[in-house]
Amino acid sequence: MDGQPTERGQRLSRAAAQRLSLYLRCVAGWPADGEKVSSGRIAEAVGVSDAQVRRDLAALGHLGQRGVGYDARELAGAIRTALGIDRPWRAVLVGVGNLGRALLKYQGFRAQGFEIVGLFDSDPAKVGSEVEGLTIEPVSALTERAVALQAELGVLTVPGETAHAVSEALVAAGVRGILNFAPVVLKLPRRVRLVTVDLAIQLEQLAFQVQQGDALNRAPDED
Amino acid sequence: MDGQPTERGQRLSRAAAQRLSLYLRCVAGWPADGEKVSSGRIAEAVGVSDAQVRRDLAALGHLGQRGVGYDARELAGAIRTALGIDRPWRAVLVGVGNLGRALLKYQGFRAQGFEIVGLFDSDPAKVGSEVEGLTIEPVSALTERAVALQAELGVLTVPGETAHAVSEALVAAGVRGILNFAPVVLKLPRRVRLVTVDLAIQLEQLAFQVQQGDALNRAPDED
Repeated sequence: MDGQPTERGQRLSRAAAQRLSLYLRCVAGWPADGEKVSSGRIAEAVGVSDAQVRRDLAALGHLGQRGVGYDARELAGAIRTALGIDRPWRAVLVGVGNLGRALLKYQGFRAQGFEIVGLFDSDPAKVGSEVEGLTIEPVSALTERAVALQAELGVLTVPGETAHAVSEALVAAGVRGILNFAPVVLKLPRRVRLVTVDLAIQLEQLAFQVQQGDALNRAPDED
Repeated sequence: MDGQPTERGQRLSRAAAQRLSLYLRCVAGWPADGEKVSSGRIAEAVGVSDAQVRRDLAALGHLGQRGVGYDARELAGAIRTALGIDRPWRAVLVGVGNLGRALLKYQGFRAQGFEIVGLFDSDPAKVGSEVEGLTIEPVSALTERAVALQAELGVLTVPGETAHAVSEALVAAGVRGILNFAPVVLKLPRRVRLVTVDLAIQLEQLAFQVQQGDALNRAPDED
C-alpha cells in the first residue's frame, strides 16, 4: 500500500518497518557476541507468527541459515540499515514541558542514534535554563538555529494551537521529518515526512480492543 | 487479519479503528450543531482517500446520504459507539515522572472519556503529594487500591525494569487493558489487552520514512 523501494529495490511497507523496529528491540537486548537467534524466538517475543518473521527478515537479504538461525549482531545491523538508523540523526525539540522533558530523559532515543541537539520554548521564563546539558533557546530563533545546528528532524511537544506555526519554522529550516505529539493534523510539504503520536488515540485503541474482546467473549460459539 | 466482530456483527480491523479515531478528531473539532460534513472533507483532513472514508463509515451503519453528507454529531456518536468510548473508562496511572505528569495534564484523555482515578509511584518522596487533584499512593498498594477504585485500564509510565511487576499487580486487580509506555514487551493473560507506545520506535519510523523518501527521490524515473 504505502510500500517504498528499499536500497535492495524491494518494497518495505510501513507495517513491515514497524515490525522490524520490534525485532530490533528484542535482538538488541539478547545476544552475547556471535550467538544465533531463531525466527521462532523473535516471533514469540514480539507476538507475531514465525512465518511473518522469516518473510520480513528474508526481505533484508541472506541473513539466516535454515536450522541454524540468525547471527544476532549481523541481524541487528541489517535491520538498522533497512530502517535508516545505521547512522546518527540530529534533531531539535520544541516545547520543553513535561512531555518534552520526558523525551529528553528517555534513553531509548540516544541508544537508537537520535541526538537532540537543540531545545526551544516560547516561555521567556524557560529560555536560558539548562536541561540535560542543553540550554533552552527562544522559539523565535528556531529556523535560524535549526539550520545552524544542522537538524534533520524536529520533535514537537507544543500545545495544539502553536503546532502549525512551529512546524512551518522547522520546514523553513529544511528539516526532513517531524515527530508531532500535538493533537492536530499538520499540513507539511511532500518532501517533509510526518509521524504523529496522538496519546488519546492510543488510549482509545486500547478501549476499543477491550470492548471487542468482550464482544468476542460473548460470541455464540463460546457460550 | 486482526478483525473482530462489532456490535453490528461486522468486522472492524485495528487499522480501521485507528482511522475512525482520526475521523473523530476532525469531526469533533468542526461542526456547528446540525452541520453536514462530507466524506471528502474528512478524507482531506486525515489524508486518506475519499473512498476509504466512505467504506469505513458505511461499516458503522446508515449515516450519510449521497450528496448531502453526514450529520456531524450523529457521526461522532456512531464512531464513539464503534470504538467503545460512548461511556467513561476509569484508569489508574503508575509512574508519576515527567511522562506521567504530561499524560495527567493532557486534556485529550478527559475529553475522550478517560478518567484517571488513581496515581501510584514507588518513590517514597512522591507518595502523599498531590498532582492534578489526586494524591500519589505507593505501588505496594496498587492491586488493592485498583480494585477499590474500580479501575478498568492501567497506564504504565514506569521504567522498563519495573514494568513487568507493575503489570502483574494490575492484572491481579482485574484491569482489562494496559497502555504501556515502558520500552519492554509485556506478557499478559489473553483476557487483558495491551497497547504499547514505544517512543523510540516512533522516531525510528520517522527516520525510515525520511530515508525512503530520499530513495524515492533518487528513483530512475525522477532523474
